[in-house]
Amino acid sequence: MEHNSIARPIRCKAAVCKAAGEPLEMEEVEVAPPRAHEVRVKIVCTSLCHTDITFWRMKDGPSMFPCILGHEAVGVVESVGEQVQEVAVGDTVVPVFLAQCGECADCLSPRSNLCSALPYRPGMPRDGTTRFSLAASGEPVHNFLSVSSFAEYTVVDVAHVVRLGGDALPPEQACLLGCGRVHWVGAAWKVAAVEPDSTVAVFGLGAVGLAVAQGSKMRGATRIIGVDVNPDKFEIGKKLGVTEFVNPNDIGEQTVSEVIKEMTGGAGADYCFECIGSVSVMAEAFKSSRIGWGKTVVLGVDGSAAPISIPSFDIMRGRSVVGSYFGGIKPKDDIPVLANKCLHKELELDEFITHRMGFDDINRAFDLLAQVQCLRCIIWMDGAEQKAGA
Amino acid sequence: MEHNSIARPIRCKAAVCKAAGEPLEMEEVEVAPPRAHEVRVKIVCTSLCHTDITFWRMKDGPSMFPCILGHEAVGVVESVGEQVQEVAVGDTVVPVFLAQCGECADCLSPRSNLCSALPYRPGMPRDGTTRFSLAASGEPVHNFLSVSSFAEYTVVDVAHVVRLGGDALPPEQACLLGCGRVHWVGAAWKVAAVEPDSTVAVFGLGAVGLAVAQGSKMRGATRIIGVDVNPDKFEIGKKLGVTEFVNPNDIGEQTVSEVIKEMTGGAGADYCFECIGSVSVMAEAFKSSRIGWGKTVVLGVDGSAAPISIPSFDIMRGRSVVGSYFGGIKPKDDIPVLANKCLHKELELDEFITHRMGFDDINRAFDLLAQVQCLRCIIWMDGAEQKAGA
Repeated sequence: MEHNSIARPIRCKAAVCKAAGEPLEMEEVEVAPPRAHEVRVKIVCTSLCHTDITFWRMKDGPSMFPCILGHEAVGVVESVGEQVQEVAVGDTVVPVFLAQCGECADCLSPRSNLCSALPYRPGMPRDGTTRFSLAASGEPVHNFLSVSSFAEYTVVDVAHVVRLGGDALPPEQACLLGCGRVHWVGAAWKVAAVEPDSTVAVFGLGAVGLAVAQGSKMRGATRIIGVDVNPDKFEIGKKLGVTEFVNPNDIGEQTVSEVIKEMTGGAGADYCFECIGSVSVMAEAFKSSRIGWGKTVVLGVDGSAAPISIPSFDIMRGRSVVGSYFGGIKPKDDIPVLANKCLHKELELDEFITHRMGFDDINRAFDLLAQVQCLRCIIWMDGAEQKAGA
Repeated sequence: MEHNSIARPIRCKAAVCKAAGEPLEMEEVEVAPPRAHEVRVKIVCTSLCHTDITFWRMKDGPSMFPCILGHEAVGVVESVGEQVQEVAVGDTVVPVFLAQCGECADCLSPRSNLCSALPYRPGMPRDGTTRFSLAASGEPVHNFLSVSSFAEYTVVDVAHVVRLGGDALPPEQACLLGCGRVHWVGAAWKVAAVEPDSTVAVFGLGAVGLAVAQGSKMRGATRIIGVDVNPDKFEIGKKLGVTEFVNPNDIGEQTVSEVIKEMTGGAGADYCFECIGSVSVMAEAFKSSRIGWGKTVVLGVDGSAAPISIPSFDIMRGRSVVGSYFGGIKPKDDIPVLANKCLHKELELDEFITHRMGFDDINRAFDLLAQVQCLRCIIWMDGAEQKAGA
């Protein structure tokens, strides 16, 4: 095994974000060798997530520029630091922004997926530093979400990588297991634990809501009501498990919760998923949930950071509200399970890949993701042309 | 079995509430025979709950005066209506404001305790009428919460009574199984499902919070942190399982959630129970709950009906908020289990009985319940003197 004692710095291409909201600049960077508990990964492909865009836009966020964004990716281990036993050079890995040290109270409990030994911090998880610098000037370039996949090579803590063993999943699908897909399917699978024959309401049919619909179908829900103002979402929704649709613009004076109650014989949905990140939609989702056992799962973070507001009497009637952090998924335990489901077509990922491009075109992905037609754009580090039919 | 075909109206004493906030007036009332699915019960003892007081004060509530309040009680079946198979004359029963028809989707599901066939409605559950009238004038007197136990005799739907079989529980203890005790112990037992060795924080050490502490102890919690501004509560708290105390008046500039996090090595409590009915305390309870799996159970209804407000980012980190409606207890299934625990001293009820009185003194109970020292006042229909040492 090639340890960092013999690994050398690598010079490669990276898309560097120098200031909030500015186009990324393709730069030559130096990627230091992995330190203890770290691995250096050659990225095969990566994708752009709305979280990248949120941080990219964040002018008042924690000082992080220049930085290398990106946290959905798949790659191959190029070298490993000391004390890394879990993966070896040549392994295919999915880096994940959420750690799983495997030893803290949270990792040892089935109830939590928030590793308390390595909670999120800026920079590398164990020392807060970075392995990136600009080749020309030596200026440090910050790490992002412990992944920084918009570079040909990145260094990731071993607690943040999941090794994909067994049969090979196509890289594009593996890439999508690194973030959103997992989070959203997990919200139905792990957080809500949707029961067979249930009725589910999904508020917002973007990539989040569609994955929740898929996860609900995977769990055996028989009615999956999709709510979206854009009727175009209904077509792809049908392919992924949505059985009925409500367009808030087409229901006159009624509220969505009134319509959902009508559709369910007055009861409401067993599970409601808020996939938009709006507190008013959160409240409407809660109202649409069934008295007795209705569960509302909140997946979006409201951009305004406004609090969720729930009538205190209403929550007394058997209803609950629960947040979904990475879908309750423990990365190293659960991502291989999902990979296996993808391999056996129990979980459909290809429908989510609407665009492909080469690394040099990455700035175009930012524009694309703002469009309704774009769910996920896969960025191939060595050019996309030959992958289109993959 | 004596059916209503031969049962006759009974004239007896009742404490009638004629207007919001006015003292109850002892009146002779006529109690009609039980109709189909109903039983007439001779009340043995009853107690006053804060919910009675809330409705008693409610000037703008649904028109309900004159009415007979009271919903915590134990009694003996005097006669039964047609189609009543479940109980017989002479059975000891606890009337419960919550129905369990046993046949609806909710009663058949282990997830709900909110019978959807007989949801709450004013008046008798199946026809909205009343069996009470003033003996002198014939004026109807309204039923309250399907129980109306402040009368020597009352008529209750069979879906609203729990038969206590087996060894006899003392009436005072049985009486307390009819409402608060069950709700609050159930919040720890059924709703939170407190796990052994957990840390619990209880906000408010009135009758509610003390019962939650007991329920948490019954479930094996090892640390039970009681929060109350009244240091007198700490003494009785210790007897019922509270292991540590926080007095919000004694912590200087710190918030209660900061103190609880300090006490738990930075983590927070596994379970937090809001037993006051204040939205600001609800928010503080939520903040005191552990990231990863902390569960906040809301037991109080805020008097102002203000909504619960939760930072939308915070709920994303593995924490949840759930309401407790009658503690998730299905009356006919779970109250006999609790009765058995009382009988075997696994659950302590006597500590809650701080006062006793005869029926004629019932107005005094309203003043007493406002006092810190009073947890529950037992009202014996045939006079309290001889029961004091029971």
